[in-house]
Amino acid sequence: MPDTDRSGVAPVALDAMGGDHAPYEIVAGAVLAVREHGVPVVLVGPPPTLHAALAAHDAVAEVPIVRAEETLAMHEGALASLRRPRSSIAVACHLLRKGDACAVVSAGSTAGVVATARLRLRGRPGVLRPAIAVALPTLPHPTVLLDAGANADAKPEMLAQFAHLGVAYAESAFGIEEPSVGLLTIGSESGKGNKLVKRAHELLAAAQTIDFRGNVEGHDLLTGKVDVVVADGFTGNVALKTLEGAVRYTFGELRASVGSGRLARLGALLQRSRVKQLRDRLDPETHGGAVLLGMNGTIVIAHGSSRAKGIAAACALAASLAAGPTMARTGERIAAMPRPHRLW
Amino acid sequence: MPDTDRSGVAPVALDAMGGDHAPYEIVAGAVLAVREHGVPVVLVGPPPTLHAALAAHDAVAEVPIVRAEETLAMHEGALASLRRPRSSIAVACHLLRKGDACAVVSAGSTAGVVATARLRLRGRPGVLRPAIAVALPTLPHPTVLLDAGANADAKPEMLAQFAHLGVAYAESAFGIEEPSVGLLTIGSESGKGNKLVKRAHELLAAAQTIDFRGNVEGHDLLTGKVDVVVADGFTGNVALKTLEGAVRYTFGELRASVGSGRLARLGALLQRSRVKQLRDRLDPETHGGAVLLGMNGTIVIAHGSSRAKGIAAACALAASLAAGPTMARTGERIAAMPRPHRLW
Repeated sequence: MPDTDRSGVAPVALDAMGGDHAPYEIVAGAVLAVREHGVPVVLVGPPPTLHAALAAHDAVAEVPIVRAEETLAMHEGALASLRRPRSSIAVACHLLRKGDACAVVSAGSTAGVVATARLRLRGRPGVLRPAIAVALPTLPHPTVLLDAGANADAKPEMLAQFAHLGVAYAESAFGIEEPSVGLLTIGSESGKGNKLVKRAHELLAAAQTIDFRGNVEGHDLLTGKVDVVVADGFTGNVALKTLEGAVRYTFGELRASVGSGRLARLGALLQRSRVKQLRDRLDPETHGGAVLLGMNGTIVIAHGSSRAKGIAAACALAASLAAGPTMARTGERIAAMPRPHRLW
Repeated sequence: MPDTDRSGVAPVALDAMGGDHAPYEIVAGAVLAVREHGVPVVLVGPPPTLHAALAAHDAVAEVPIVRAEETLAMHEGALASLRRPRSSIAVACHLLRKGDACAVVSAGSTAGVVATARLRLRGRPGVLRPAIAVALPTLPHPTVLLDAGANADAKPEMLAQFAHLGVAYAESAFGIEEPSVGLLTIGSESGKGNKLVKRAHELLAAAQTIDFRGNVEGHDLLTGKVDVVVADGFTGNVALKTLEGAVRYTFGELRASVGSGRLARLGALLQRSRVKQLRDRLDPETHGGAVLLGMNGTIVIAHGSSRAKGIAAACALAASLAAGPTMARTGERIAAMPRPHRLW
């Protein structure tokens, strides 16, 4: 998604204290986002620290700071978030809620970000649970996998809703028309899977507005068999990390077997190769991060290990999603779908 | 595991009617097992068909046939297995139970093989559920992943037992001393995961005879971080297929970027490369298949798409496991472990 002129647009609220390399790499990422992507950013965290970090980049005038005294550590989750209304992620969500920010970006702990977002932002009316969506680097366009980790214990009705969230995202963010949907399980026949998936299969098969193609398996994730892959947050997260790990490992093995220095033209070709592209497309530093769908606002969760480049990419992703139709399409789809029985 | 002289040893009972390419590739695999691996095999299925198939290989005298009138189709599971006591897989299990076979090999539907084995063979005393174990091609020795698909809906107590089954397998089949165990989940901290995994973590942490290293994630599967990775059958199967798919896909992308004919020495190097070896080690045609642990006998489940080479490898694997200490070690571990409370 191309960067456009965003002068006069509300800035991206960036959680300066979330991530393995916070705050310095986060601040550097904010500066990169402003200078290279033209994305306005406001840093949320302790002013003295952030001011000093910005000064080091000579960027005090370019990136405003909003005060937040508290922080959530990477290992902290819902409870800590509840106890710290002034954490940097909580204040960032508050800015989004008030309309003083167009989106929130954080590289903090997924559990903490999800819990804080649910606590401090209103969820979309009718949304049972927000879901984390990632774009798998399939060609010609990405495959949306969700939930990639927001709900470790999900109900069938949630999986059915994730399909709608994923379709709205695939349509609005990647321009995929009438995205096809698959359910991640352990066999191609409809009867295959655990209790959760079997029931979700029934709900998806009955959904009028979903182009449901039935079950998909782990080996279908990179082949673009369907446009949207639905899973519970536990299975989706295990699959995503297994996929990333296997591609990274295979690429490493390959480079090792090429050997250092030896066969220069092979090394050069390797750098150009589709494998390299594949690995890069899987690299969070490149794609920016995952999107928390189903909330009342755009929230991008950057990889915890993100450095400046990844943070800047996440801010650019957040700004273009906020400017695009994703939120609206999501709302329409959720409003149009029948309320799950369990809500009544 | 090297082939040894097995004259006078009970043969491997091979389900001639299980698999996408049954019976002809299965029969060809039996002939290959006898002639190239020196593994005695008895084919189980309809005599006329099998006799004709053997005659085509001029091998009627080398491979005996045991009659089984019925078969389980690839899509059939527990119910069909219950209804067909004379299916080829059921008769094969009967031979193993009577001691007329040293092991059972089938490329039939996993659900059907597991259900039939549980129905026709006694499970090990104290074993809650059998688990499917696969050897991931890590170096210097494989990593055992289980359950890879026998139990889509598991209980925490089952996962704790799978750890014992996996340790016994890693020790006896791969000579790993005091194998370390990890629990497949979505975060490295002990609190991370779904309800099932959180409870299983407590049970494993309390197990005296397990070297439990805590949580592992999807990207740890190929790095050999632990010797045994425990998961429920749903998560384990999704992770395995995702892993296989990602490695195969990456290798394919690589070959595509090398181009056909072009850069001959590169292609040649690719054939020797560690990536090729990695893919081959993941190829069921090479490693033979998965092992169903926790039953009263050796059962190898070959990949449904197995051809002669894969079937022969599965027979060789089954014969060497049957001749080895795996069954005994499994029994000792299960006998030694405290019975899960829920049994009382």
